[in-house]
Amino acid sequence: MPDDATLRSALADYLSRPHADLRARILDLLATEPFRTPVEIEREEHRARVLAAVRVLADEGFGLLALPEAQGGADAPDQAIAAFETLAFGDLSILVKFGVQFGLWGGSIQQLGTATHHERWLRRIGTLELPGCYAMTEIGHGSNVRNLETTATWDEAAEEFVVHTPHARAGKEWIGNAALHGRMATVFAQLSVAGREHGVHALVVPLRGEDGALLPGIRIEDNGPKAGLNGVDNGRIWFDRVRVPRDHLLDRFATVTEAGYESPIESDGRRFFTMLGTLVAGRISIAAASVSAAKTGLTIAVRYSDRRRQFGPDDGPEVPILDYPVHQRLLLPRVAATYALHFAARDLIGRYASELGGQGAGDVPGEGMREIEGRAAALKVLASRHAVDTLQASREAMGGRGYHAANRLGRLRADVDVFTTFEGANPVLLQLVAKGLLTQYAEEMGDLRFLDIVRYLADRAGTRVRERNPIATRNVDRDHLRDLDYHRAAFEYREERLLESAARRLKRLTDEGVDAFEAVNRCQDHLAALALAHGERVALDGFLDGVARAPSPGVSETLADLARLFALERMEVDRAWFLEAGYVEPVKSRAIRAEIGVLCAELRPVARMLVGAWGIPDGVLAAPDALD
Amino acid sequence: MPDDATLRSALADYLSRPHADLRARILDLLATEPFRTPVEIEREEHRARVLAAVRVLADEGFGLLALPEAQGGADAPDQAIAAFETLAFGDLSILVKFGVQFGLWGGSIQQLGTATHHERWLRRIGTLELPGCYAMTEIGHGSNVRNLETTATWDEAAEEFVVHTPHARAGKEWIGNAALHGRMATVFAQLSVAGREHGVHALVVPLRGEDGALLPGIRIEDNGPKAGLNGVDNGRIWFDRVRVPRDHLLDRFATVTEAGYESPIESDGRRFFTMLGTLVAGRISIAAASVSAAKTGLTIAVRYSDRRRQFGPDDGPEVPILDYPVHQRLLLPRVAATYALHFAARDLIGRYASELGGQGAGDVPGEGMREIEGRAAALKVLASRHAVDTLQASREAMGGRGYHAANRLGRLRADVDVFTTFEGANPVLLQLVAKGLLTQYAEEMGDLRFLDIVRYLADRAGTRVRERNPIATRNVDRDHLRDLDYHRAAFEYREERLLESAARRLKRLTDEGVDAFEAVNRCQDHLAALALAHGERVALDGFLDGVARAPSPGVSETLADLARLFALERMEVDRAWFLEAGYVEPVKSRAIRAEIGVLCAELRPVARMLVGAWGIPDGVLAAPDALD
Repeated sequence: MPDDATLRSALADYLSRPHADLRARILDLLATEPFRTPVEIEREEHRARVLAAVRVLADEGFGLLALPEAQGGADAPDQAIAAFETLAFGDLSILVKFGVQFGLWGGSIQQLGTATHHERWLRRIGTLELPGCYAMTEIGHGSNVRNLETTATWDEAAEEFVVHTPHARAGKEWIGNAALHGRMATVFAQLSVAGREHGVHALVVPLRGEDGALLPGIRIEDNGPKAGLNGVDNGRIWFDRVRVPRDHLLDRFATVTEAGYESPIESDGRRFFTMLGTLVAGRISIAAASVSAAKTGLTIAVRYSDRRRQFGPDDGPEVPILDYPVHQRLLLPRVAATYALHFAARDLIGRYASELGGQGAGDVPGEGMREIEGRAAALKVLASRHAVDTLQASREAMGGRGYHAANRLGRLRADVDVFTTFEGANPVLLQLVAKGLLTQYAEEMGDLRFLDIVRYLADRAGTRVRERNPIATRNVDRDHLRDLDYHRAAFEYREERLLESAARRLKRLTDEGVDAFEAVNRCQDHLAALALAHGERVALDGFLDGVARAPSPGVSETLADLARLFALERMEVDRAWFLEAGYVEPVKSRAIRAEIGVLCAELRPVARMLVGAWGIPDGVLAAPDALD
Repeated sequence: MPDDATLRSALADYLSRPHADLRARILDLLATEPFRTPVEIEREEHRARVLAAVRVLADEGFGLLALPEAQGGADAPDQAIAAFETLAFGDLSILVKFGVQFGLWGGSIQQLGTATHHERWLRRIGTLELPGCYAMTEIGHGSNVRNLETTATWDEAAEEFVVHTPHARAGKEWIGNAALHGRMATVFAQLSVAGREHGVHALVVPLRGEDGALLPGIRIEDNGPKAGLNGVDNGRIWFDRVRVPRDHLLDRFATVTEAGYESPIESDGRRFFTMLGTLVAGRISIAAASVSAAKTGLTIAVRYSDRRRQFGPDDGPEVPILDYPVHQRLLLPRVAATYALHFAARDLIGRYASELGGQGAGDVPGEGMREIEGRAAALKVLASRHAVDTLQASREAMGGRGYHAANRLGRLRADVDVFTTFEGANPVLLQLVAKGLLTQYAEEMGDLRFLDIVRYLADRAGTRVRERNPIATRNVDRDHLRDLDYHRAAFEYREERLLESAARRLKRLTDEGVDAFEAVNRCQDHLAALALAHGERVALDGFLDGVARAPSPGVSETLADLARLFALERMEVDRAWFLEAGYVEPVKSRAIRAEIGVLCAELRPVARMLVGAWGIPDGVLAAPDALD
């Protein structure tokens, strides 16, 4: 395969879309001093630098991208995510601080609030004039946020909400911007009005005055040193009967009037998950940022491995380590997976933006957004895992040089690590995705209970899953193994079959009288496998769409080979499943492994181009051993 | 399964052998101030603290354990490794600094030198009076050390060796103790005598004077910040025609006399690998330390997960997260694998010590040591991978709490990371192990060339591999699935079959005229699989011996269940291979997965006891969220 300049630039240009100019502007900034965090830096200084960097970004207007035009914004959520995606090539503490201020704090006001809140706060948030927090997680409740314990009690006489932390472990935890800089917070609390509980709602609570001093009733504790992201000032917050006026309730989905509590959504649970759903941009952004972090690691490791020589034939010169099959196998499938996740993330961002565009401010998000939430959760899991795994592989691929702090892989890995946990812990998200897939038929059948749906699916099992083709299971022809339609069919088969079998298993358990909670518990591994199969199918679809829309035959051909490598490598990793399902026979499983080796060898000559096309400038890459 | 105090203490007592008192003394030290490195610490201060801690250990006599009695030592290499293994429960920077001084610097003098060197230097090394370095790795040669470029040229007239760095990239790299504290170094260099090259030899070269100032001809550069282990002062060293007297050549395996160069070993290559072989204690120690690091991570994560509650049945209390099958699946098989590696490492340490005991000082190590080298390399790969993987899983199992620096998992993971690289990069070691297995028949057949041996093995392929039992491949009875003899047979079958098939593949390639280097390259994945299968078989054997020698039926029964979980989980991870090989059929592969879930549920009630039996005191564990 040729590595010619035309192909390289055509590929790079394609990958920079959409919003190439925006990305270029941010890359220019990342190469400047305020964004080049020293390799060694003390925590307090790091936090100060990070705040300064976010201020630069705000001054450049990047904090306003997602806001409504009425507040001086660009009303372009997809541009905001593109900016976030590009910032992820730099210090991830700056990225996260940026996300906390504009994505979480600003996003919660925009998505959960209404006109009053928008007019009062959004512009000042977008300019960083008003730094704030997103206070949901509690010490006692990280994953199970529906049961968090902070209370907001409506005091009819005073027309105020009383926000209170009932006991120490109900304190807010890991709240970004809380330890030092946040002046207000969106606080999630159990709302009670006239003695009735209405579940979790969001209210805006001031934390610090203009002078930065804590306000009465607010107690904040620094979360202290973390395994990474030490440039972000996370903290714990406790509230002692703090009073806020009526209009501090973010009232898009519920209001408290003289008439009492009102909401367009009956069920407390449904209302809460609708609120969370509007914040899906956070998960999409973390998925996209994870892809960027993987790109940084692979660009550094591939450029190094392309030059580093070790061992060789007797009395011949030593050979570049990327010429070794095990080394190709370590890096190139990860390059392919990074391309897959790149296109899947871009596709999701597009769907999200257009779905949002179709909504009126007050609308309750519909089916379309529900599906996007499921894809976002699955993709966040895949991408965050991929980033951690890829940065580890990149470090090991560089041996001792990868351990050099100057080459960035150590801190990057430590920073990205928590992406597997925040915006939803991966194991919890997988269960969520699977349940979403199992209940997507709810519409077809009217709003049935979860277990009824499971029964429905189980009963029609087998009727939907396409038949296995007995010849295909043994077919080892190269054309067939490289056929993208075959890959797509295999991924779809796996997802469908896991869906049907999970449903059957759940039905069997409940038929035996096991209660729903326990039945779902026993199927956790099965449900996780289903969610991952769904995520990989979505990733492959996104990749194949990207191949189809390629601007030139050369680009299309290159991307198609990467898609083949991605698909075959995923199939090989999960080949035990395909063997157990009888979808491939041992001879084919072995042939797939061999074909992966051949594809790696074919792509090796363009490996440098493939990572170069991600467009990370040397000044941003900054790793000495990756530069020429 | 009961968690009673008798069982707990019997198990803990068993695991503390041999040298329980020695381990207890070190654990007491680790709980004292000099060993409790602050969560946040600046690099220079960390290095100073680490030196001070190692001085405490030297003052307590732990640096003398491995030395000959003539030098005031205990002549107990196994005790030295037991000390190292225990130190790995603390700050790994202290561990590595300890290993550099006493294991590498002292070990190289003891193993490669003779009486003169021992008398002159060993005691002062063991007391830390003479801090030193082990200078092998070069910037240009990390893995391929046989081709390193530093030269040592014999000057007959002056009766001196001239040690020289021919160009910048031939400088020594990552040398522990070099940046600050080392006063001398064992330097590996290409020896040339009277114009003839004799390959790599070791010489002692002074680096700094009593005052700590660098000596003429020595240039040292600090390696600077690393991804971890920042309490160790690694550095780069360049030599400018540095002269050392004749008796600075470590001459156990080669001398230079008036008569010129003399060595009991003809081949330069064989001599070099014999020298390296004598330093096998390093790999054994890293394997053992990796197991300790995994124990720390799992003790913290299991104790936390046993208490942390999240989610639960409707209107029931929330349940401890360790009650969830996916969470059990995340942690308990890793507990089992840690037990397996514990016993395998202890077994290897014992073999090493007795093999060493049987040797005279001057002897060239024989077959016994060759086998131990192979096991050490395989175990180092398995254990270092396991430590990295387990610390990551432990971090994720604790969600955000695992990201708290105070809970130690972040730094531990960053520190242990490089264990996969030093003392031999894992991918390189796997190839080494496989080649060792392929050539173990050399003795049987006289000293044949590698490829002849491959031919020999290929020709007898099939004759040795036991037949598959057609009933066993479908047998899903619980008794059978839990039968330790079945597990042992499965592990042996996999190793034998991979050995034979690798040999056949190599033969086929060379028959087609592919040269040896290229043929081996194309089989790298196959050889790596063989090496891992060998390592896991050795680990299972070690574990089963540990079960057999258990002090009581209760302990034996508990360990047997852990061995079952370890064996079945390894089989499940590699089930694709067993399916492809036809050793298990899909129905059995699924049954194995189910049985793992059952075993996890059975072991869950004693999970806390199982990690408690590793005997890490709270004062050493130190993670706030793991303490009651």
